[in-house]
Amino acid sequence: MKATILFSGGKDSALSSLLLEPFFDHIELVTFSFGQEDTGKVAAFAARQLGYPHRKMVFEDKVLDRALEILISTGYPNDALNYVHAIAVETLAQNCEFVADGTRRDDRAPILSHNAICSLEDRLKMHYLRPLAGLGGKTIKAMASQYIDFQEELSENYPASDFEVGLRHALIDRHGSREVERIFPKNHMHTRVIRRKRFVKEIERKEDQAC
Amino acid sequence: MKATILFSGGKDSALSSLLLEPFFDHIELVTFSFGQEDTGKVAAFAARQLGYPHRKMVFEDKVLDRALEILISTGYPNDALNYVHAIAVETLAQNCEFVADGTRRDDRAPILSHNAICSLEDRLKMHYLRPLAGLGGKTIKAMASQYIDFQEELSENYPASDFEVGLRHALIDRHGSREVERIFPKNHMHTRVIRRKRFVKEIERKEDQAC
Repeated sequence: MKATILFSGGKDSALSSLLLEPFFDHIELVTFSFGQEDTGKVAAFAARQLGYPHRKMVFEDKVLDRALEILISTGYPNDALNYVHAIAVETLAQNCEFVADGTRRDDRAPILSHNAICSLEDRLKMHYLRPLAGLGGKTIKAMASQYIDFQEELSENYPASDFEVGLRHALIDRHGSREVERIFPKNHMHTRVIRRKRFVKEIERKEDQAC
Repeated sequence: MKATILFSGGKDSALSSLLLEPFFDHIELVTFSFGQEDTGKVAAFAARQLGYPHRKMVFEDKVLDRALEILISTGYPNDALNYVHAIAVETLAQNCEFVADGTRRDDRAPILSHNAICSLEDRLKMHYLRPLAGLGGKTIKAMASQYIDFQEELSENYPASDFEVGLRHALIDRHGSREVERIFPKNHMHTRVIRRKRFVKEIERKEDQAC
């Protein structure tokens, strides 16, 4: 079985991959971008550190156009994040049997509704997995720290590979930095994976005990 | 770090444990019962198969009394299941830093509300984990099958170690089988773990490749 994980290069989607690793023969990470230069670099570096194959995909131009329209008309990021995330998941679900992401218990966006998930799984005969859906922020930090080193970055910093940073950057390009200040929260942070600290040493020891 | 998992002996709480295993130094399984003879046997057998230490705990008598009152007054199982599950989680949370269960994405009961989870984590400075909260039934079956053999049983069959079977049994004892037929669904199934098929062979192979 192969699991395909929507990957931003941050600790959340990395932990999702690490949680699934023992259950799948193959793990593949996929990063979507809006075609901006360098966007996928952070994720590609993180994927190499984690030891998983990595693939970059670019949204069609009209997806960015529509996402920016939603940002400007709503005046906050959530609906636009939900819009691009849903398209990314649906795109992967066309060809992949197991599609996962790093969305968390306490995330308000991006998030698919329960009805949207059931529709997706029924229509496309696939599995949509949210391995972090039952974990809080502190738990995720504690568990991710067992396997990876990561650092926090201001979401104003570029390049990065997550949707929020991509949308901020495109908004500046087309509408100026005032619109970013109006729509996005100040001092928002994201993480990026720096290093995988271990593979499965602890489990091997347990296996020895069991034998 | 130690994870304490509310364990029924079935595939769901077993998969929860398997998902957490690589991230914790110690896994401990805990099964609550209403004091009925043999209740913990199925869970104790399953825990041995999985290779984890197992502890049995018995609810105070008043918990069963109240659960039966709720069953009879509501006429359906969900509120009573939520009541006993919440007490079990709260009891473990008093002394354990990481408490997990096997509740799933599509479960309607037992389930803690988001507010109840936040209150629990804030009050008791602990982590409550639902590793299956983002997984559907078919996904859980596919993932659990990678590590364990399990069988399905009619929930009318006794003994078993999950709350639904325990409540059914106590209701028959005190109020007769007609009340069970009125309140619980017919042909409800639960699972029990028969065997752990492997420890971490697949991951070891991957580690070899990475080195």
